[in-house]
Amino acid sequence: MTRVELLRKTAFTENGFDGYLILNGINQLYFLGFPGTSALFVPPDDECTVYVYGVNYEQAKAMSKGFNVALVKGDENFLAKIAKKAVECNVKKLAVDALGVQAWVNLIDELDGCKVEVNNSHIESLRLVKDEQEIEYMRKAGELTSEGMKAAFNAAKPGAKEFEVAAEIEYAMRSRGAGPTAFETIVASGTCSAFPHGGCSGREIQEGDLVVVDIGATYEYYCSDMTRTFVAGKPSAKQQKIYDTVKAAQQKAFQAAKAGVVAADLDAVARKIITDAGFGEYFVHRLGHGVGLEVHESPSMNSTNREKLVTGCVVTDEPGIYVPGFGGVRVEDTLLIGRDGAERLTVGPYSLSSRGN
Amino acid sequence: MTRVELLRKTAFTENGFDGYLILNGINQLYFLGFPGTSALFVPPDDECTVYVYGVNYEQAKAMSKGFNVALVKGDENFLAKIAKKAVECNVKKLAVDALGVQAWVNLIDELDGCKVEVNNSHIESLRLVKDEQEIEYMRKAGELTSEGMKAAFNAAKPGAKEFEVAAEIEYAMRSRGAGPTAFETIVASGTCSAFPHGGCSGREIQEGDLVVVDIGATYEYYCSDMTRTFVAGKPSAKQQKIYDTVKAAQQKAFQAAKAGVVAADLDAVARKIITDAGFGEYFVHRLGHGVGLEVHESPSMNSTNREKLVTGCVVTDEPGIYVPGFGGVRVEDTLLIGRDGAERLTVGPYSLSSRGN
Repeated sequence: MTRVELLRKTAFTENGFDGYLILNGINQLYFLGFPGTSALFVPPDDECTVYVYGVNYEQAKAMSKGFNVALVKGDENFLAKIAKKAVECNVKKLAVDALGVQAWVNLIDELDGCKVEVNNSHIESLRLVKDEQEIEYMRKAGELTSEGMKAAFNAAKPGAKEFEVAAEIEYAMRSRGAGPTAFETIVASGTCSAFPHGGCSGREIQEGDLVVVDIGATYEYYCSDMTRTFVAGKPSAKQQKIYDTVKAAQQKAFQAAKAGVVAADLDAVARKIITDAGFGEYFVHRLGHGVGLEVHESPSMNSTNREKLVTGCVVTDEPGIYVPGFGGVRVEDTLLIGRDGAERLTVGPYSLSSRGN
Repeated sequence: MTRVELLRKTAFTENGFDGYLILNGINQLYFLGFPGTSALFVPPDDECTVYVYGVNYEQAKAMSKGFNVALVKGDENFLAKIAKKAVECNVKKLAVDALGVQAWVNLIDELDGCKVEVNNSHIESLRLVKDEQEIEYMRKAGELTSEGMKAAFNAAKPGAKEFEVAAEIEYAMRSRGAGPTAFETIVASGTCSAFPHGGCSGREIQEGDLVVVDIGATYEYYCSDMTRTFVAGKPSAKQQKIYDTVKAAQQKAFQAAKAGVVAADLDAVARKIITDAGFGEYFVHRLGHGVGLEVHESPSMNSTNREKLVTGCVVTDEPGIYVPGFGGVRVEDTLLIGRDGAERLTVGPYSLSSRGN
């Protein structure tokens, strides 16, 4: 079945909708395979229509297979155009994946009489389980990310500026065929390593600094996500203890990860190790998150999500300890969940000392 | 006056609001100067409050100057928390810059009785005019982007893959201190150059190809935007004619750009040259757009916007001709608008042949 057929099965046949308006760009990418479109309308049956402004019209026509392509003119009310189409198709209950308040008000005006519901859950469920093609892309994204981490391992030495390390990482990924980074590269050294999203500045790495490197390549629009923490020099006893704790938590969660495990239980596996070591208050985020076309998607691996992992979903395993004023450590891999266990899509050394030293 | 004071002046004193809830991350960045926060609440008077999840809490506390920082727990209803604060502050008419439908419904529930309006215009107006600090950052972003274009000029030769050219560009910008790219680097060769958003693939550049290179560095979160089009080899007569037309249109618009000019009139200056040369139907987008913390912001330089340019706004000047199946040409600079004219923040050679040949 195509993705549109699967969507019709779950949203239409099983849940009573008879039209789907897809406004989120990543969702459109999921169904179409190319970016730059403005909306995708799935009618009760027959071909779907992609709505595109002039600037991307020729590209959409060239790349679109099995979808009508409709040109939206600059001065045209594009929601009104889609609403008209929905009315023509006799849609009685329309799902819309996501939209802003103002767009919502305009749409309701035009759809006089048709029931509308903001609902992204059916698409989210489809995107949760990766098919063979998606797994191939994510495997490649993971390999490219691992190459980036090798470059970080060599570059993160005393005297290097954080952005210089980022330049080496991104060059290593990009020159091997990666797309744009999946998110903003983090190279956070010294006390900034204690900020989970510590950014990447012009700071010079100092001897003895903790350096958190959190990176992700994309390949064919699919993301990867990986973190390693280095010490620029010889680790102190405290740095080593924190590091060993995080690494053990990450490894335990990896070993426990497989289809059928409850997300919150996996978070608990890692959290227990960190808490038992006395650092519980410094693990200030969830264990991880789903990865796919977006670097953050379903499922959320937090302490309250009772959802079970399923075969073919991809998640991060990324415990961390962040001691304000001292520094932080995070170790992260992207995992493909299987029936009997998980596979690491990102692979890299766990040594605490960077090779640059 | 601080930015918050300016916002209070226009939105509160002059327009009757007495509270502002800022949910857009870029708007928060504008007022705070650092990323990673989840909401900013501006009460009628007194200090503003920044709402932050645990993962970014220590960072926000360390970086925040003159703002209260409130921790939002993972299981907390964060809009309810803000609504409670607004009620405590006796807010009667709250502006919200942007939010999704579901969030809107939740917020209204909690704000029983308070009038709420989705309104981003006051913040948009503030962001339109860049102050000295912002101009300094944008000047630097422009310099870094120009360095990236030099790298493209050397790398875009027959046999090079599009992503290899992107790798050289991004390395040139990043290693000199740029932040993440302002948008996804475009290196579009051959017939793909006819797609204004032609992406960047693994295609090998062929002798005689048109290659559109559209890039932007960031510096301190501020964006830049620049395009050059190269021929990998000796330009054909048709390529040269299209190129000369686009370049003339870009130059004429640059010469006409200054405070007081109507955006649509500037678009018309460039469009007339392209239309007179017989390529009007192939200029499928607006002349340009504002640039700042976002690469696309106000003002829009399209054929219908009657807004006048003002001193201190920054816009792109980017006419293009895209002939399907043949190729495309775009030339773009980022311009700082002044009282008597415009200044190019991106500067680079206009030669049609890349140096790689």
